[in-house]
Amino acid sequence: MIVFRPSIIVTMDDSMGVITNGYLGIEDGKIEYIGKSKPEHAEEIVELPKKIIMPGFINSHTHIAMTLLRGLKDDADLQTWLMRYILPVEKLLRPSDVYYGALYGSLEMIRNGITCFLDMYYHEIEVAKAVADVGCRAMLTYGSADVFFNRDPQEEFRIAEQFRIDIESLIDEKKCEDKIFFAYGPHSVYGCTEELLKIFRDASEERKIRIHIHLSETRVEVEETRKRLRMTPIEYLDKIGLLSSRVMAAHVVWPTDSDIEILARKGVHVLHNPSSNLKLASGVCPVEKMLKSGINVALATDGPASNNRLDLWKEAYIAAILQKGITYDPKALPAKEVLKMATINSAKALGLDSIIGSLSVGKYADFVIIDTEKAMESVPSHDIFSMIIYALDSRYIDSVWIGGNKLYDAKYGFSFIDVKDVKNKVESIRRRLIEEAGIYENP
Amino acid sequence: MIVFRPSIIVTMDDSMGVITNGYLGIEDGKIEYIGKSKPEHAEEIVELPKKIIMPGFINSHTHIAMTLLRGLKDDADLQTWLMRYILPVEKLLRPSDVYYGALYGSLEMIRNGITCFLDMYYHEIEVAKAVADVGCRAMLTYGSADVFFNRDPQEEFRIAEQFRIDIESLIDEKKCEDKIFFAYGPHSVYGCTEELLKIFRDASEERKIRIHIHLSETRVEVEETRKRLRMTPIEYLDKIGLLSSRVMAAHVVWPTDSDIEILARKGVHVLHNPSSNLKLASGVCPVEKMLKSGINVALATDGPASNNRLDLWKEAYIAAILQKGITYDPKALPAKEVLKMATINSAKALGLDSIIGSLSVGKYADFVIIDTEKAMESVPSHDIFSMIIYALDSRYIDSVWIGGNKLYDAKYGFSFIDVKDVKNKVESIRRRLIEEAGIYENP
Repeated sequence: MIVFRPSIIVTMDDSMGVITNGYLGIEDGKIEYIGKSKPEHAEEIVELPKKIIMPGFINSHTHIAMTLLRGLKDDADLQTWLMRYILPVEKLLRPSDVYYGALYGSLEMIRNGITCFLDMYYHEIEVAKAVADVGCRAMLTYGSADVFFNRDPQEEFRIAEQFRIDIESLIDEKKCEDKIFFAYGPHSVYGCTEELLKIFRDASEERKIRIHIHLSETRVEVEETRKRLRMTPIEYLDKIGLLSSRVMAAHVVWPTDSDIEILARKGVHVLHNPSSNLKLASGVCPVEKMLKSGINVALATDGPASNNRLDLWKEAYIAAILQKGITYDPKALPAKEVLKMATINSAKALGLDSIIGSLSVGKYADFVIIDTEKAMESVPSHDIFSMIIYALDSRYIDSVWIGGNKLYDAKYGFSFIDVKDVKNKVESIRRRLIEEAGIYENP
Repeated sequence: MIVFRPSIIVTMDDSMGVITNGYLGIEDGKIEYIGKSKPEHAEEIVELPKKIIMPGFINSHTHIAMTLLRGLKDDADLQTWLMRYILPVEKLLRPSDVYYGALYGSLEMIRNGITCFLDMYYHEIEVAKAVADVGCRAMLTYGSADVFFNRDPQEEFRIAEQFRIDIESLIDEKKCEDKIFFAYGPHSVYGCTEELLKIFRDASEERKIRIHIHLSETRVEVEETRKRLRMTPIEYLDKIGLLSSRVMAAHVVWPTDSDIEILARKGVHVLHNPSSNLKLASGVCPVEKMLKSGINVALATDGPASNNRLDLWKEAYIAAILQKGITYDPKALPAKEVLKMATINSAKALGLDSIIGSLSVGKYADFVIIDTEKAMESVPSHDIFSMIIYALDSRYIDSVWIGGNKLYDAKYGFSFIDVKDVKNKVESIRRRLIEEAGIYENP
């Protein structure tokens, strides 16, 4: 057992709390010991003065390959952004592009302390390959949308099922048990027919597989659903029996009070994307109200084209101050709560809280070491959660560990890959895409 | 003349724009040359591939010594925060504490690329000493508030005048011309009597000295002013003739449409503090509306006790996405506009745009070098302003230059001071303060 001895261990485990000058022991990729006193069977003690160990961040909603589309067109209205830039370029994406976009995005997330994420995209098996090559954790969903693709619902489901089979083979082949997970990804109420949604409902129920869906993201979505179905998107999904504690609903910026009650009653998990919701002018998710209703709210970055960073620490800061500013209550969403959203709540949303999300004996050793000595902002400090959320940020990450392996070190970079090569590859894909799409060439 | 040759020069100068593979020449602390072609009299050419040079950020509103009070009590209601924590501890501040708080805060700002700031506090001459020792630029105001201190208005004005005289001596003694500037600092409409405000009005008019004031920060402030005076704070200041283009108004979260018209007509500068306004649950300043009305809006961090970082780059990102989210317009406050707010608009607010705020020949060489090679987020990129605001952040600062001197280098730190010593000093002050104030001892 290797034992770390940092100044502070922020476990995010209700029974363990925060441990000062304690010990964290890991063996075979898992946490074997946490406590105030020195464990008996330590092979090696790594002294980490002025350092904090906390669980890795879990990014509960992204489209990671969209790193390729970052900054493609900012400060534009949504129709222009989507129709003239994002969609035409997405159509040109080859499977190998998605692989490199996902590879680059996964590395970027690890650098920012994100050790697990929930994804939705096309050519999703390429994302799985990238995740397997990088060694992080991810739950992957193919974005099913028979309406967008003008496909038969059965055919669209068959594609999702094929992805499930492919990913199961890949998990076997690359030995990625407990690293890569599968879920269904019906894109949204407006992207899927009722027939397709009902197929997913039944398959999810039968196989106990989770569902990842965009829900009530924009006011327009809610208004158009009302016009079309005389219900809100949430009422509609409830009516067709899709909602359950296996559902992970991204955004939920425009729920009614009765929608919130439905989500709470059904145990639906909400994935909150504060920067994306602001940047795309969708609005602000009523997180404080949801938490008070007992809904599990997780934190997310959304895709890098609408953020434009894969930094959950930044999201935590923005989420915390935004809820205060919007509710006019400076006590709303305190630092500890928002750190829960970025760790254990996200793990719960993904149904993985028995293996990740907190530093607890028996869980995987997925954690971040923070160097408070490098930060000026760490002084003065009176509360560790306040320091982490309001004063520090991801630039003070010292190293990032997944399953007991150090994947990233601030001083030496990634142990297993040269980021520059991937960066050059992404840049060359960008050039090809904008040339093929006939968009500007002027970085 | 020393000449820099970065990949990109972001001048923030309307006529110069963005220069790719150009040259920036400096001599005697000022910018001597900017252009596409190589200048003739270059002594030395510093090649800076994959680097961006842009103007230093100007933080248009802070209380820098409040670094000492950072994180003293977060996530609390305003009364508790102010009455049980901030005010009792502030009362215990000694002049030397303010010196160290300002010293630490100035260094922290420089690390984040801030080369000039506008301050308001007590023992402000100590802030001036710290600024002189550090070598950054600052406009300093003593926070005059005869109501809070229960002082005679004439006596309160005398203190401000004494500060003016002291600071003029210090500028002479330390040779800080064009580095340290003085302005009046009537705290607010609720902190000052009408008599005091009128004294400042007359002195400002007579001596052409600027006025730094908190204005319409909270809904409570506006409501109570309405009750007391049957006017908004802005209408009141207009009525007593205080408003002019010399006035720098911090916050302005709760203006009426007619208030905005008054501010525009009088040429008042607004200092926008997005994080502080959210974190303290004040609300959101209608920046987009103000800019459209022709008001000069500058960007600011506010004091570190209500932020809790001195990072204007972060503020720029938050300001840009917040305006979009609040107005439901994704085109609101585009990247270039928000970078103007953090540089040239702040310089205009302080009346210093003839000497700083953009990279223009004849202005001081106050700039930041950004290393895009260190960033993963710099790829892909299609627009330089979008890349800077949405993708990058202050962790990619390579070095910070003021008046042609490199004060900070990411690799070697500060050339003139050991930050650790100051950090230890700040930590020892924290310990003393919380002991004297009888507040918790548990960092």
